[in-house]
This record gives sequence, structure tokens and C-alpha cells, in this order.
Amino acid sequence: MSTVRLLTDDELSEEAVAVFADIRATRGSDFVNNIWRALANDPPALKATWSRLKEVMVEGREGGLDPLTKELIYLAISTANGCSYCVHSHTAAARAKGMTDAQYGEFLDIVAMAAQTNALAIALQTPVDEVFEKG
Amino acid sequence: MSTVRLLTDDELSEEAVAVFADIRATRGSDFVNNIWRALANDPPALKATWSRLKEVMVEGREGGLDPLTKELIYLAISTANGCSYCVHSHTAAARAKGMTDAQYGEFLDIVAMAAQTNALAIALQTPVDEVFEKG
Amino acid sequence: MSTVRLLTDDELSEEAVAVFADIRATRGSDFVNNIWRALANDPPALKATWSRLKEVMVEGREGGLDPLTKELIYLAISTANGCSYCVHSHTAAARAKGMTDAQYGEFLDIVAMAAQTNALAIALQTPVDEVFEKG
Amino acid sequence: MSTVRLLTDDELSEEAVAVFADIRATRGSDFVNNIWRALANDPPALKATWSRLKEVMVEGREGGLDPLTKELIYLAISTANGCSYCVHSHTAAARAKGMTDAQYGEFLDIVAMAAQTNALAIALQTPVDEVFEKG
Amino acid sequence: MSTVRLLTDDELSEEAVAVFADIRATRGSDFVNNIWRALANDPPALKATWSRLKEVMVEGREGGLDPLTKELIYLAISTANGCSYCVHSHTAAARAKGMTDAQYGEFLDIVAMAAQTNALAIALQTPVDEVFEKG
Amino acid sequence: MSTVRLLTDDELSEEAVAVFADIRATRGSDFVNNIWRALANDPPALKATWSRLKEVMVEGREGGLDPLTKELIYLAISTANGCSYCVHSHTAAARAKGMTDAQYGEFLDIVAMAAQTNALAIALQTPVDEVFEKG
Repeated sequence: MSTVRLLTDDELSEEAVAVFADIRATRGSDFVNNIWRALANDPPALKATWSRLKEVMVEGREGGLDPLTKELIYLAISTANGCSYCVHSHTAAARAKGMTDAQYGEFLDIVAMAAQTNALAIALQTPVDEVFEKG
Repeated sequence: MSTVRLLTDDELSEEAVAVFADIRATRGSDFVNNIWRALANDPPALKATWSRLKEVMVEGREGGLDPLTKELIYLAISTANGCSYCVHSHTAAARAKGMTDAQYGEFLDIVAMAAQTNALAIALQTPVDEVFEKG
Repeated sequence: MSTVRLLTDDELSEEAVAVFADIRATRGSDFVNNIWRALANDPPALKATWSRLKEVMVEGREGGLDPLTKELIYLAISTANGCSYCVHSHTAAARAKGMTDAQYGEFLDIVAMAAQTNALAIALQTPVDEVFEKG
Repeated sequence: MSTVRLLTDDELSEEAVAVFADIRATRGSDFVNNIWRALANDPPALKATWSRLKEVMVEGREGGLDPLTKELIYLAISTANGCSYCVHSHTAAARAKGMTDAQYGEFLDIVAMAAQTNALAIALQTPVDEVFEKG
Repeated sequence: MSTVRLLTDDELSEEAVAVFADIRATRGSDFVNNIWRALANDPPALKATWSRLKEVMVEGREGGLDPLTKELIYLAISTANGCSYCVHSHTAAARAKGMTDAQYGEFLDIVAMAAQTNALAIALQTPVDEVFEKG
Repeated sequence: MSTVRLLTDDELSEEAVAVFADIRATRGSDFVNNIWRALANDPPALKATWSRLKEVMVEGREGGLDPLTKELIYLAISTANGCSYCVHSHTAAARAKGMTDAQYGEFLDIVAMAAQTNALAIALQTPVDEVFEKG
């Protein structure tokens, strides 16, 4: 259960109404998912979070990454952080952006591979190769 | 410092020699980085780890993801797991696979965004929307 | 579901009865929450955990931190560790100690901010400034 | 070592110059720490990160938390995320905001306590008490 | 809920049927738990994961660790990674391999102790003693 | 670098002197490692941490686990938490307690295996099998 009430559309403050309208217009869908209904209890946080998410995930950068790649990076972070809500919502988003079964299979292969070698490198305390230290 | 010695080419067992030869042939480079020199102390683990890495990251799947996307997923997991060695080596690998500054900038934007919303969803204990629960 | 039975008051060993009595007296409430009912299967662990918790969170230190600040630090760690039980119980505890909506909003802002910059500093492998290395 | 160059003042783009000027004015100090010098390679990310940090950590909310409490929450998240850079910089920031030895001792006590009970609650998979599920 | 369907025996591909048969033969039990039913959607991942698990956890190494110690290491990692599924399944596996209540109590003591000193060492950024740096 | 000074024997308070004497007597060695020299800045925390560590890791429980198994559990948690100091010190401790190369190899195999299946179970959000929910 949420630590705060998930607000229905009727319960939104004026500031939250405007953010919800922008979420709907941006996504071209009437559906607003629970994380926004939780954040709606605190309109400034709702606005700041959505604004940045829209900049990063919707508008993006010139010469940047394609939408599916972006979702898969988001999903990878969410998996490693053990965020159940985020894994569910970004798996759905990746599918909506065209992720095929083969691509999902490959995503999972990489996640499992990285987790495994991360654990080995940490357990072995492997020092960074000089050639990688070019900062 | 590593918890084990990083083996030089002269110190490798016969089984490790064969794996190092495959790493070099597969990558078309003489350079073998430290994680393999650490694992070389334990040839069966060296072989199992490299074999799977080669399958997942080099051979991949038909209809799967492009090489840069795969590196970025690996890098995302490595970042969230706080694996310093892995962040360094996979940032270098992503650059070697053509990652531009704009793409790296966008990658970092997504990593920061995901970390932030992961923390919010966990702090708020947001329940998964029914529509995402299609398993 | 718990990996162990959550013991009712009737099922407690003598040693656990004494700890539960101290929990109730210390908190001035008859309610004993599930983590203690789980630990009650192992009275020495129950006693060691509660004794230290009482020292740290109830008795505290002279010249130390105020009770709400202490709960917020606890809640921050619980959030970053992804401990669902702990997020719920310490959010409730923070409210019981007077946390207002504005304070909770600010707490969440900081949690999200820290998660974001933590991810950036790890992804960028930013070296510690000399001026911070005074240890 | 950083995965990117840490820019000196002479190497900044015009947009980064403006952000550095604001960092200096806001903090009343000429010193600009490494995380900003790393982010300066990507001026839009530099600006977005600093703007939000300033809102959250400097301007804050009416009726919100005191500055030291805010730093301690930031430091707790940084510790749980294992971000070495962040632990160093926010320990220094907490001291600059007046953290005494007794307060630091108590902070560490809570961090250790929370880590311990988080681990127990996760290992035991303790279900959330109904009374905490009021969302 | 799973992000993928949990396949029943009737829904398995030929390749998955063979893996399930090996799981059953290896374990001497007809029961196949959910992680394999989820992976069965992607037979190559199912096969790769089970093959390696069998090598590591069932066949093991000459002169290696006893079965219960192996399960406890697995359970410790699962706890620290906050993997609820894994904590449940490997607690059950440890019990099936003879873990007594005293051993489980001691396991939990160590998990809690390690979590606590890990947090302290990270918060204090304790440098590694020279004597431990023998790599 | 440490966030606090690492105290030499000459700088210890009376309370810290007593704890150091007990560490030396318990371990039968004059060497006191850095985590205790860091905690020595705060004698009550030093004493509380050492007392509990001694109970858990040295005295243990009747019918509990053997000393090497205990170290390996500690090392597993330290690895998953990414605590560099702890990985180094507990790898050394495991070797001091007789860990052979084959046992270390098997330990690393399990750590890598668990990290991998943890990541898969979290990515797939696999629901716990009913048979494991016996709490």
C-alpha cells in the first residue's frame, strides 16, 4: 500500500490538474498511472518530477538515443534498484514502444550478465585498468 | 587492490591460455583487461564467465538489440550496482562502439531520472497499477 | 509472507515476554508490530535487536539529534535499501513524531535529489575533492 | 578517475560559466567541487541538476526541515547507495552546517541500526502491519 | 505479478520440456518453481540459467563447500539484493538441506551484523589496511 | 580517505583502550584494523559495535555454524553491499580461517550465480510460489 492516498481526478488541486492535463496531452491517453496520483498530494513535487521526466524521456536531445533504448536503460536502473513499481511500469512502456520478445530476452540476458560480472568485480576488488582511466 | 593476483600472460594455466586466445581473437585486440587476469586464477570460472559473456554480448540473438544499446544497458546496471570497475570498462566499451557525447549526455539524464523516480516510488510504496499486471 | 511464524502473545517464551513488556512500557502502547513478532522466534536476537534499538532511537545521546530528525535518517536508509516493511513502519513513526506534510514533501525532495546525484557521481566516477579528504 | 575531464574555469562553455557563477554566489564561496566540473562537460545536465539542487537544498520549502537535518538525510541516502564521492562531500557539508561530534555519532548509530533492521526485515520477509497500511 | 506468463507444463516448447525434465530428475521431485516457469517463455535463457545453476549449486567443485553453506551464501546475497522471491525460495532450500533453528538464528545474526558494519565502513569511508592489500 | 581520523594507540580514550585490549586478547594478535581506529573517535559506538561483533562472530551459538561458513556469509553480504573495506577485511579473515582456493572459487561461483538469478527474478517480478509461503 502507498504511504499516501492515491488521488482521484476529483481530489486534485488546481496545480495538479494542470500537470495531469499535460501528462494526458503528452501521452495522448487518458490513463494516469499511480506514481502521479501519489505525487499529486504534493503539487510542487508532482510538477518538478513530471517536468524533468518529460524533458528527459519525451523531448530528449538532438542526436540522442531512440525511444526504446531509453526505456531499456530506465528499466535496467529500476531492476538494479529493486523498484517493483518501476519494473512493472517501464516493462509495459518498453512493450508499448515496440520491444519484441527477442529484444526482451536479450535485455534480460544482459541484465543477468552484468549483475554477475558486477558481483565478481566487486568480490575480487579488481583495479581499473590504466587504459580506462582517461578522464 | 585486487583480492587475488592479476596474472600476466606468463603465469596462465593451459586452460586460461586458451580463453585468453579466444578473448583476443573475438575482440581483434591483444589487450586483455584486469577482470580476466583476476579470474584467470580460477580457470573454470574464467571459462564459464567468458563463454557466457561472448554468447550474450558478442554473438547475441537474432532480431535482438544493437551493440551500443547493449553496452548502455550493461553500463546502467553497473552504475546502479556501484561497480567502479564495471562503470569504467563499460563506459570505455560504449565509446568504442560509437557512443557520442550527446548520447552519453542522454544516458546520464536517464540514469539520474530513473534513480530519482525509483527512490520516490519506493519511498511512497506506490502500488502497481492493475493495467501493468498482465503477467 | 514471513519466512517464520509471527508469534502471538500466547506463544512467547519467557525471555520474549520480558522483551515485549519492555517494548510496551517504553512506547506506552500495547501494540507490538510484526518485526518483533518475527524475531520472537529467536529470543536472543529479539533481545539484542530491541536493546540496541532502544539505546539508539529512544535513549539517544546527550547533545544529539531531535526525535523527528532521527526517524527521517532511519527512513532514508530504509528507502535506499528498498525495505518495504521498514519504509511503512518508519513513515508511520515519523508521522507519530509530528512530521507535517511540508516536512514529508521536503524529505521526499531530498531523497529524490540524493538518488539522482548519487547516480551521476557513480556513473561519472567523480574523484573526491582534496578539500573533502581530511580524515 | 572520472570518466570525463574535470573542466577548469577556462574550459567552460558560456552556459556553464553562468551556472558556476550562480553556484559561487549561492554558496558565498569561490570553490566549485568536482561533481560540477564533471557535469560541465554537458551544460544542459549541469544546469538542470544545479537548478533542482538549489531549489531543494538551498531554497527549500516553507515549514520544511532545518538545513542540518536536510544534509543528514542526503548523507544517509548517499551512504546506503555506497556513493563515495557523495559521502565525502555531504559529510563535509554537514560539518559546515554545524554538525557536532555527538550529532555525527548519533547519525552513525542510526545508520548502523537501520541497516541492521532493514536486513532482518528483508531476510524474514516481515509482512507490513495492517495499521501501517493506511495509504 | 510476473511481467511474463508463468507457463504450465502444457505450454512448454520442446526445448523447455527438456530443461524441465532435467530439473525434475536432478532434484528428484516433480515440483518446478515459478522462476523456471517465467524463464520458460525464453527457452535459451531457461537453458543457460539452469545449466549454470546445476553446475554451481548441484555439481559443485571438488574440495568445495558443503551444500548448506552454499545455500546460506546464496541466501545472504539474495537478502542484500532485496530479492523477495529469492529470499523465500532459498530459505526453503536451506531448510530442505537441514538448516536448524539455531543455524538460521546465527545466519540472521551475521546478516544483521554485516549490514551494520558495512554501513559504518561506507559512512566512515574507512581506507583498506595495507595488510589486507596483498593482491 | 576516512571521514574521521584513524586513531593511533596513543590517542585513545580510556574507554577505547579497554576495547582495543579486548580486541587484541580475543584475536590473539596485536594488530587492530582501521575500522576500529575510525570508530575509536566515538568510544560508545566502538564498544557497542565490538561487543555485538564478538558475540556474533567469536562466541556464536550452540549448535550454530562453523567459523568459515560464518565468514563467507559476512563476505557475501559485504560484496552485495559493495563495501570495499569489508570485502578486503573479510576475504583476509576467510583465508585466515582456512579457506582454500577451491572453496574461494566456489564462493565466487555462488555469488555470481545468485546475483544473476536475483536480477532475473526482480526483472521478471516472479511471484513467490505458494509452497514457499509457510510463514
